[in-house]
Amino acid sequence: MKKSPELQILSLNAFSGEGAALPPDIAALVERRQRAFGAGSVLFYDVPLKVVGAEGPYLHASDGRAYLDFYNNVPTVGHCHPKVVEAVQKQVAAFNIHSRYLFDVSHDYAEKLLATFPAVLSNLVLTCTGSESNDLALRIARRATGGAGFVVTQTAYHGNTSAVTEVSPSSYRNGAPPPHVRMVPPPDPAVFGNDVGQGFAEAVAGAIAAMEADGIRFAGLLVDTIFSSDGVFADPPGFLKEAVEVARRAGGLFIADEVQPGFGRTGAGMWGFSRHGVEPDIVTMGKPMGNGYPVAGLVTRPQLLADFCADFGYFNTFAASPAAAAAALAVLEAIEEDGLIANADRVGRHLKARLTHLMARAPMTAVRGAGLYLGVAFGDEAGPRADIAKALINGLKEKGILIGAAGQFGNVLKIRPPLCIGIEHADRLADALEELLAA
Amino acid sequence: MKKSPELQILSLNAFSGEGAALPPDIAALVERRQRAFGAGSVLFYDVPLKVVGAEGPYLHASDGRAYLDFYNNVPTVGHCHPKVVEAVQKQVAAFNIHSRYLFDVSHDYAEKLLATFPAVLSNLVLTCTGSESNDLALRIARRATGGAGFVVTQTAYHGNTSAVTEVSPSSYRNGAPPPHVRMVPPPDPAVFGNDVGQGFAEAVAGAIAAMEADGIRFAGLLVDTIFSSDGVFADPPGFLKEAVEVARRAGGLFIADEVQPGFGRTGAGMWGFSRHGVEPDIVTMGKPMGNGYPVAGLVTRPQLLADFCADFGYFNTFAASPAAAAAALAVLEAIEEDGLIANADRVGRHLKARLTHLMARAPMTAVRGAGLYLGVAFGDEAGPRADIAKALINGLKEKGILIGAAGQFGNVLKIRPPLCIGIEHADRLADALEELLAA
Repeated sequence: MKKSPELQILSLNAFSGEGAALPPDIAALVERRQRAFGAGSVLFYDVPLKVVGAEGPYLHASDGRAYLDFYNNVPTVGHCHPKVVEAVQKQVAAFNIHSRYLFDVSHDYAEKLLATFPAVLSNLVLTCTGSESNDLALRIARRATGGAGFVVTQTAYHGNTSAVTEVSPSSYRNGAPPPHVRMVPPPDPAVFGNDVGQGFAEAVAGAIAAMEADGIRFAGLLVDTIFSSDGVFADPPGFLKEAVEVARRAGGLFIADEVQPGFGRTGAGMWGFSRHGVEPDIVTMGKPMGNGYPVAGLVTRPQLLADFCADFGYFNTFAASPAAAAAALAVLEAIEEDGLIANADRVGRHLKARLTHLMARAPMTAVRGAGLYLGVAFGDEAGPRADIAKALINGLKEKGILIGAAGQFGNVLKIRPPLCIGIEHADRLADALEELLAA
Repeated sequence: MKKSPELQILSLNAFSGEGAALPPDIAALVERRQRAFGAGSVLFYDVPLKVVGAEGPYLHASDGRAYLDFYNNVPTVGHCHPKVVEAVQKQVAAFNIHSRYLFDVSHDYAEKLLATFPAVLSNLVLTCTGSESNDLALRIARRATGGAGFVVTQTAYHGNTSAVTEVSPSSYRNGAPPPHVRMVPPPDPAVFGNDVGQGFAEAVAGAIAAMEADGIRFAGLLVDTIFSSDGVFADPPGFLKEAVEVARRAGGLFIADEVQPGFGRTGAGMWGFSRHGVEPDIVTMGKPMGNGYPVAGLVTRPQLLADFCADFGYFNTFAASPAAAAAALAVLEAIEEDGLIANADRVGRHLKARLTHLMARAPMTAVRGAGLYLGVAFGDEAGPRADIAKALINGLKEKGILIGAAGQFGNVLKIRPPLCIGIEHADRLADALEELLAA
């Protein structure tokens, strides 16, 4: 079978050992890394970066350079944000223990976070990773519906557990997801034409019908609400509505994976699903939640959680620990105090306009996205130009800018910087891209 | 079907709202907690503890008391160990990013950790939780063997993902594990008589034969090497050997879950499996690894990992991050510098001797365990006395000592303090138990 998309995306940007000769200090670390981590080691770039510091939108490397970070969404309020650093430092010195005891910070956090969701989503389960959140969401959906089948997009990535890998087609290097997982194309105008909403909903309906024809009961529609690994699809706002209605009519839940778009990245409020005017049954969260401290979670309706807990005990030792809650609370406060949602909107619009302007003189086929999650496509399905994406990623690195790739063919530049990035940084990226495309 | 063991264990020690009236500040927090976390909230004790600080073997509560902690194994080198606190504080201020870049601390950690294992287990995969480690171990075993079936003990707990819950019979409140999971009794002399090793191995062989008779290919034997949730079974050292041989002869892997016994707790070296003179194919680690910072992992043979990675991409965003590695490295250093393995042996022997002495005048049926993981059983399978265990847990709390329960019937006191606990603390626990048993 054909090489899977994820492998293409990975290898596009991964250290292979076949590139330029490595500086001695990097070569030594790479050798140690491969010996200890073996096949599990994946490094970025032909000459991997050794990080020695980070601040705001910059990663400092052992080569003495400060790299402008347009890749990392985990440090969402900025690398080493003083507020988050202080919160973690204080809490780990005071106490850090599991959540079968009471302490104030978890409650302060839970209430502040829940206030950002529709009122019906009033229960929070904290976990440690987005993978754990999606794994639990699948179980809650199965319990609620009696079904086992899920519909996902064809290059989706939702995490790394056994069950979540099954709903993550992009993780398969060989083989394909099992029969209870059905894939639909991403909501791409190139696939569905002008009415993306209707086309995507029909694809979902078709996938559900095919699954049920095979005797598999439908449990839910699970999508990343900005379709990151599929190549970033955000527009028009509202296009998800019809697919969600289709899923509900078929008796399934709608699970919104906000690991990528959540916490203000789209510039249109806290959550990607709200741009679409839909109300999920379960919302899963991850990466940016603690700005690097491992904390994740899901919100759902109390009855769905109660039904699940009637069948299974669920406890997560590190989740909801005081340090996790302190980090996560500091992130929510920093998003507010630093005005990061408005900033994501303002800088994202500026950057999108500048990138769109470049389309006139480059083989760019689309500039997509919302806020500070943008995708720039080169070529199309018939002739995807991953070669251009790769050249740009490496060229930008030479110019001190970090960026990644996404999409089924790895032909989409993925732009998702810390949300503290400014107009001047956006201009630096656009200028650099302009120079590289001119060359 | 009968109420599952885990529910019994949980309810034994869980806040139910039916006990004594709560102090106003606790009542207010409990109400907030239940509103935000719903059915997912599980608290300990009839009057839950509000924690306001922690140090060494003590948890400080809002009632002004310092509770001596014989329950918590996560802060394994002591609550807020200065070395770990400093390592995390420094690293989160410097940089904390995912592991597709290079940085020194992860390599320093990986090499120091791998040096504690048999040489063939030379590859490390870092994750965030023990659940993620066990989930990945199941996948590696399936890939290596082409099998799907696992043998576990009947009250085993290995974590909380979909796949790991299936191999965790203690998590089922309704129903039972699926057919690919077969359960055997724990290695209890009360079940198997004097030759526990032979009896346990025969039970494993029987479970494999029954599974294969149903057309399910055997993939592995997965056990916690101190059988914590089954009620703590440690002796005689070496009893696991025959079962491991049975598993290997049947074409399966042996997965040692060291989340509970690992990192020196048994007082007989770093790992529980080494007490048994066996060499696992995969070793999984969790809770104590970062003294509270979420970090976990597995070690295995390079070929097993390479075979798995040929089929699936595996990446774990927060795992192997610099802060996780810094915390985990500080834990390894503290275990060495503070002499905690020798301390676990010395204090554990003293405590075990004192508890065994109490058996003469109390309805105690067994004192089991190794190092600072001890189990004290009340009653037996025919007449388990969870009532006594519960009375003791609450009585000890009144005396300022925290402890938990384990075992199929919740009738086993579970003693697993931070490893920094001293003889004087062990005596305080033994004295308190003696007083309570006399009453």
